[in-house]
Amino acid sequence: MSRDVVAAMTAYTLELREAEIKLNQNEGPYDFPRELKEEVLARVLERPWNIYPDFESMHLRGALARAHGYETENVLVGNGSNELLAATIPTFVGPGTPVVFPKPSFALYEKLVAVAGGIALPIAVDPATGFLPLDEMLRAIDRCDNAIAVVCSPNNPTGGVLPDGGINALLSTGATVLFDRAYGDFATDVLPALHDRLVTFSTFSKAWGLAGLRVGWLASTASTCREIRKVKLPYSLNIISEAVAATALDHGEIRSRNVANTIAERARMFEAMEQIDGVRPFPSRSNFIAFTTKRDAKDVFNDLHGRGILIRDIRAAVPNALRVSVGTPSQNDAFLEALSSCA
Amino acid sequence: MSRDVVAAMTAYTLELREAEIKLNQNEGPYDFPRELKEEVLARVLERPWNIYPDFESMHLRGALARAHGYETENVLVGNGSNELLAATIPTFVGPGTPVVFPKPSFALYEKLVAVAGGIALPIAVDPATGFLPLDEMLRAIDRCDNAIAVVCSPNNPTGGVLPDGGINALLSTGATVLFDRAYGDFATDVLPALHDRLVTFSTFSKAWGLAGLRVGWLASTASTCREIRKVKLPYSLNIISEAVAATALDHGEIRSRNVANTIAERARMFEAMEQIDGVRPFPSRSNFIAFTTKRDAKDVFNDLHGRGILIRDIRAAVPNALRVSVGTPSQNDAFLEALSSCA
Repeated sequence: MSRDVVAAMTAYTLELREAEIKLNQNEGPYDFPRELKEEVLARVLERPWNIYPDFESMHLRGALARAHGYETENVLVGNGSNELLAATIPTFVGPGTPVVFPKPSFALYEKLVAVAGGIALPIAVDPATGFLPLDEMLRAIDRCDNAIAVVCSPNNPTGGVLPDGGINALLSTGATVLFDRAYGDFATDVLPALHDRLVTFSTFSKAWGLAGLRVGWLASTASTCREIRKVKLPYSLNIISEAVAATALDHGEIRSRNVANTIAERARMFEAMEQIDGVRPFPSRSNFIAFTTKRDAKDVFNDLHGRGILIRDIRAAVPNALRVSVGTPSQNDAFLEALSSCA
Repeated sequence: MSRDVVAAMTAYTLELREAEIKLNQNEGPYDFPRELKEEVLARVLERPWNIYPDFESMHLRGALARAHGYETENVLVGNGSNELLAATIPTFVGPGTPVVFPKPSFALYEKLVAVAGGIALPIAVDPATGFLPLDEMLRAIDRCDNAIAVVCSPNNPTGGVLPDGGINALLSTGATVLFDRAYGDFATDVLPALHDRLVTFSTFSKAWGLAGLRVGWLASTASTCREIRKVKLPYSLNIISEAVAATALDHGEIRSRNVANTIAERARMFEAMEQIDGVRPFPSRSNFIAFTTKRDAKDVFNDLHGRGILIRDIRAAVPNALRVSVGTPSQNDAFLEALSSCA
């Protein structure tokens, strides 16, 4: 029935639980401002819903280009950056293509590489260092012909980043580099210069606090965007998500405030977690902190959930580890207090 | 850079033109009722936009299942049925997999098959018959091992359908059948029984008149849905499109009215087009009519556009042919009058 490679896969799953305080999906903790919600919905009400969205999402692509100093042809938008990864990987990865990526990382990469028939070459991450294993990646790429590198920096779920100059070092090998900076705003990194062999993936789900709307975008040179565009579906955004994202871009202070709050709270949480006996937080430049516990992490996870706090069990990725998203100060206080008493 | 198979492809494009009367994309001609727009947007306003949509869209899948006599596990939803086709084709089609499909048909199938490395086996459609070439498809499948059949019935852009019993005939070969019934409501066909080797694709874009929202769904057995789910991305629908689709399902009269209007107008248009000298409409069970003209079709297309009417140039698919969507009675009147004077 399904192909062998698919039959051998497991689905990407998420344990669904209810909780009063939700710190399990690295969502921005602040809702979109109500007055902006009202403004964009009033406009959406007047639009015809029976007419297809713009085939190429030109308006939003133009707005993203202007905001980042690009041309419209350098930007593609998608239904979350997931969709753009799903189009980009088969643009470059086919049967037998070697793909080098840090592991653990976002599980979707490995799945998309498997579907495309690529050869996964995972490079182990040590979360304690706060960095991704650039040198090991470079060596692995050098051993391959025409490798593709996929890197998420800051990395999910460990929080570490590529060392400075990492993207250029990867590009200098001749590899094509797919750079997922879903969490890049929290590392206050800068978008790298455009390059034919570099595709940068960004999202409105994290720093913009719009996870419910599913909007992502990518940037590369015009010629590389044209190739990805052959594989990507048209009409990725509906009329509403495109309007919301464009409205958000007009209010850059939303992102700036979210990022500033997150960075401040992340520092406070990290220090507090270090003080809790048996808890070892890993350095993070993202909007979450991974940590191990002396007690069985599954028990800690369950105890926290019993106190109304849902975080992420990442034991499958990092031994005996959990991951907590940086929330609002009061959510973080509740988490820290609960962790103190059950770690 | 990009893979050879991608470099050799051309992007799916749409000629973008403005026009007062838009009959080029087979959209339902009536907007979603304003009171329902207001109702669903009022609910959306109160939801947190910073929180991810439901991972598995359980609410809408349950509503679709109830509406069609399925279980939730028999239904998957996507960002348009395009997204579901893009997940399903690589679930079944890999390097060397033979894929039998009528041609011309929806261009996306061939593109997705090429990306997956499948072998395209197009079967020529004669639009004049009003039917898809079932016997030729069956013979082509019999000559292959483990073929996949992809069929859009009614077919876009020609309008013909599979003969009665066509899906069962295709299944009886042992092939896996991907059945796109995007236009099925207009043929008043019925959803076929579930089968492990059958996947049925439906959409809210046509009969429901919600093309702007990008919602599609598929139905199959639970085990086949599980396999497709391994390839499909999670979070396909944002919180707004899921809410709109669920609201629509509570108002089945919207679809019934659209379908009844379309069928009545289609008959009227067909008869009128038959009376126009030099115009030859092809039989259609869909919400559009393909036709040839004695004059160069490109000139007719341009003349219509000059009169504010945008239809679709399908000469690349059918020699000297155009395609007009069935619109509102007044849109159709304007089209018929213009066509009479320029065909």
